[in-house]
Amino acid sequence: MSSLAIIILLLLLLELSTISAMVKTRQFKWKVEYMHWSPDGVEGVVMAINGKFPGPTIRARVGDTIYVELTNNLLTEGVVIHWHGISQRETPWADGTASISQCPINPGETFVYRFIVDKAGTYFYHGHYGMQRSAGLYGSLIVEVAKDEKEPFHYDGEFNLLLSDWWHKSFQDQQIDLSSMPFRWIGEPQSLLMNGRGQFNCSLAAQFSKSPISQCKLRGDEQYAPQIFQVHPNKTYRLRVASSTALSSLNLAIGGHKMVVVEADGNYIQPFSVENMDIYSGESYSILFTTDQDPSNNYWISISVRGREPKTPQGLTILNYIPNFASKIPNFPPPLPPLWNDYNYSKTFSKKIFALMGSPKPPTRHDRRLFLLNTQNRIEGYTRWAINNISLVFPTTPYLGSINYGINNAFDTKSPPNTFSKDYDIMKPPPNPNSTYGNGVYMLKFNTTIDIILQNANALAENVSEIHPWHLHGHNFWVLGYGDGNFTTEDAETTFNLNNPPLRNTVVVFPYGWTALRFFADNPGVWAFHCHIEPHLHMGMGVVFAEGVHLVKNIPSEALTCGLTGKMFMKNKHK
Amino acid sequence: MSSLAIIILLLLLLELSTISAMVKTRQFKWKVEYMHWSPDGVEGVVMAINGKFPGPTIRARVGDTIYVELTNNLLTEGVVIHWHGISQRETPWADGTASISQCPINPGETFVYRFIVDKAGTYFYHGHYGMQRSAGLYGSLIVEVAKDEKEPFHYDGEFNLLLSDWWHKSFQDQQIDLSSMPFRWIGEPQSLLMNGRGQFNCSLAAQFSKSPISQCKLRGDEQYAPQIFQVHPNKTYRLRVASSTALSSLNLAIGGHKMVVVEADGNYIQPFSVENMDIYSGESYSILFTTDQDPSNNYWISISVRGREPKTPQGLTILNYIPNFASKIPNFPPPLPPLWNDYNYSKTFSKKIFALMGSPKPPTRHDRRLFLLNTQNRIEGYTRWAINNISLVFPTTPYLGSINYGINNAFDTKSPPNTFSKDYDIMKPPPNPNSTYGNGVYMLKFNTTIDIILQNANALAENVSEIHPWHLHGHNFWVLGYGDGNFTTEDAETTFNLNNPPLRNTVVVFPYGWTALRFFADNPGVWAFHCHIEPHLHMGMGVVFAEGVHLVKNIPSEALTCGLTGKMFMKNKHK
Repeated sequence: MSSLAIIILLLLLLELSTISAMVKTRQFKWKVEYMHWSPDGVEGVVMAINGKFPGPTIRARVGDTIYVELTNNLLTEGVVIHWHGISQRETPWADGTASISQCPINPGETFVYRFIVDKAGTYFYHGHYGMQRSAGLYGSLIVEVAKDEKEPFHYDGEFNLLLSDWWHKSFQDQQIDLSSMPFRWIGEPQSLLMNGRGQFNCSLAAQFSKSPISQCKLRGDEQYAPQIFQVHPNKTYRLRVASSTALSSLNLAIGGHKMVVVEADGNYIQPFSVENMDIYSGESYSILFTTDQDPSNNYWISISVRGREPKTPQGLTILNYIPNFASKIPNFPPPLPPLWNDYNYSKTFSKKIFALMGSPKPPTRHDRRLFLLNTQNRIEGYTRWAINNISLVFPTTPYLGSINYGINNAFDTKSPPNTFSKDYDIMKPPPNPNSTYGNGVYMLKFNTTIDIILQNANALAENVSEIHPWHLHGHNFWVLGYGDGNFTTEDAETTFNLNNPPLRNTVVVFPYGWTALRFFADNPGVWAFHCHIEPHLHMGMGVVFAEGVHLVKNIPSEALTCGLTGKMFMKNKHK
Repeated sequence: MSSLAIIILLLLLLELSTISAMVKTRQFKWKVEYMHWSPDGVEGVVMAINGKFPGPTIRARVGDTIYVELTNNLLTEGVVIHWHGISQRETPWADGTASISQCPINPGETFVYRFIVDKAGTYFYHGHYGMQRSAGLYGSLIVEVAKDEKEPFHYDGEFNLLLSDWWHKSFQDQQIDLSSMPFRWIGEPQSLLMNGRGQFNCSLAAQFSKSPISQCKLRGDEQYAPQIFQVHPNKTYRLRVASSTALSSLNLAIGGHKMVVVEADGNYIQPFSVENMDIYSGESYSILFTTDQDPSNNYWISISVRGREPKTPQGLTILNYIPNFASKIPNFPPPLPPLWNDYNYSKTFSKKIFALMGSPKPPTRHDRRLFLLNTQNRIEGYTRWAINNISLVFPTTPYLGSINYGINNAFDTKSPPNTFSKDYDIMKPPPNPNSTYGNGVYMLKFNTTIDIILQNANALAENVSEIHPWHLHGHNFWVLGYGDGNFTTEDAETTFNLNNPPLRNTVVVFPYGWTALRFFADNPGVWAFHCHIEPHLHMGMGVVFAEGVHLVKNIPSEALTCGLTGKMFMKNKHK
């Protein structure tokens, strides 16, 4: 070896050791338990982590290993936690999805989630068993760029904003209602929460309201007192925002301030400026705003319901220009959101999102294209959602285990349909209630390019089609396009954006419309793809993808103690 | 072999085959799921079995095998069912006690309870995981005498009456309240239920009441309409009654009718006649009554709260003399119960219970005597009950598995104390809050005679001592005596009844008093012994006995999929 080669080798080793020194394992011991709490001033019960609601915020750097020792301190219920937006490459068992990646963690038991955060961005985590996310089991997960890397934008400070919606009825009762015959809808949330805080009985902006709602009299130390965002004039701030809502699509605004959107679901996007922005359940964004307004005032930060007739008051907090008092109510009424059913407004926003130049481009061709029609149906008298006439019911044995070990009878072996009837009229209520329960899997060939066309349709009621934000586990996908009505092949040829489509893990399909996305099936594991509206998933609105499962090695047996995998371990023991 | 011997042999074989022909396997497929229901006219949610609340009644004959395939159709919760009063001889894993005999059955999973009912009598079954019994998970289990056997009393017909109490707050919220700091008591039940039926907003006996409660206007087909007991005049009926209450001690009466008590917890007793009778949670009785009253009237059957200041209305139904209309309200007001705190009245009743002549007698000597003092304490700020300063917290791994397989660290290896300080003043609130959490086991030498002295004491509040009905799994015990104040050795010598003490599986300890019982530790397994008041057990009021566990063979691995036994099976698999 020449001395030059040796020097290069030494330099390389030095670099490697520097990198490894920078990369950390972030260790946490978490206990999930119920706790009395007043998210909006009305006392209820939340699923808390270490006595906190929302759960603790995790901050890490790209490449770090997250190590969460999760103990279930609930009394009779299982629990899991999904790390929303994290690829779980080489750790598909840590995806935290009951029935898919692992068995529920039983009361008293501890499960270790250990995974690498391989991409900087704004993420969150949440329960993924039954409707436990609705119980308040969620928190923020922020991944910063590596120490020697820079974000492609500048800011002076940052805030974190986790959005959710809140019911006064317990999540268990909500689950039971939705599973009842006759069907009982959970209704609209009582409150919208910002970082777990909302006001049910009062409004910060009562003085501007025509309705006789009372002015909040908050000392500021209440569990539900809004978190005030304190800023200095003439600075630029990054607001990291994620939506863990169970139902609500939201519109976010900062009164008087423009917002520049720079990140979506952990992916840089071409910055664009808006007065307000939509955010759907399962999405996350970073926006920049500059405190260039009259510094003697404070300003509203507001969230308002989109896409459903709003019966829930606006969620509010205050952008507090230092040195004003935090309690100084802004001079102006809170931002007026767009009309709830102005879908064109929403589409305009969604269509403004493009990948930042230099981002990975999609393959130009697809290997397989799935057409997924969502319909609302009645099955044996129960109200359910279905995809291509299959309403998802989760199996007892996690797919990751049953597929990896080749166990029969763990789920429907018949593959769910690739498409739906061409004659289906998406503008009319489902004409024939021929949907069935099912839990078959879309087996995706490893390392192939998959297109998905999400096709929206009329629900059971006439002239109703709802918004559905679809979330894919284990991957980002490119959003190739949106359209109205029935998707056609010409749409693909004429409208698909293959140049700078944004990468996302969640995308919305608009009423009576379609959304097209593309992803590369290169992450061995089993992955849920589902409507992120909690009651919709509970009612069957999801599908399951499996790819390269035979390549998955060393699934921790702790993840597979239930169902047929559990039985298999038992049998082997008795041999 | 002589021809006589052959004939005898043939006769014996014939008899055996006759017996085996008479013995049946009673097979059931049960699904546990939540259901909207109005037990007392106010809609709530119950844990139902096959859509029934209370669960289906099982009727079997002595020697039959009960085979219940139990599927958990709850959404996120585990479940087990305990067969209260059944010995589970040779099937200790079928006792249905979470953390002791098995792991909770996870949602979607099926567990088979298969056991023999070896003793005729009146029993019931109920949930035994967290406070799921309070959710309404209970039903009756009646074991009839063999076809060729007769009861030691005559009756013309029989009725079944399962008693319970009901809260409008969900059992989950009750659990959370009791586990909170500061402590939140669940309060008194809203209603008393007879066969799952009560009236919250109205009374059948409103016309006799001084308070302005409204008369029930029932059509009779409501979920909460009382079940009418129809009788013919001048007949004798057997009323099988069991109490599954979560909290309430009850007094039962049939207006105008004497009751002859003939069976207690599946054991025949010396018949005695009473005007009304106490029944504590976990107890069962058979009583006979003769319809010897004016046949032109109907009569009340009533249950009333004992031992706690009653804030819950009397539970009522009607004894309907045919051919009167069922809706005919009795001429007289419902039976007036004894004063709630007239404990002498209650003691008088309990002390009337003696074993029927010919019943098994207790051993005259004991091998070991345990003194179990119950105290109410604060541990780390939480309000808990403790036995000899140990407040029971259930382990994750079922004791039956961890002891049978010799697994370390599954529970506290230190044995809990055999007795308590002689200086302890039972008349004062616990002077020093030195109780701790624990889950150690009383290891009982196999085939030895165990005495237990239950010693009651003052609770945390001054001048308060409560009733506690203690239930022993896997055994009957002889009730040797009751006394006031501190138990002394002289008490044993002078007051113990070794002649005809009743066999029971549940016995009450009165305020500031003691109760002495004796049993033979001859049933290999691990057995709970605990206060049958659901919130008291949840707050730690119980102990665990283990005997002859090494003799237990072939525990189904399905019972041990959790905790360290689960891990053990996994490890073996990887070998």
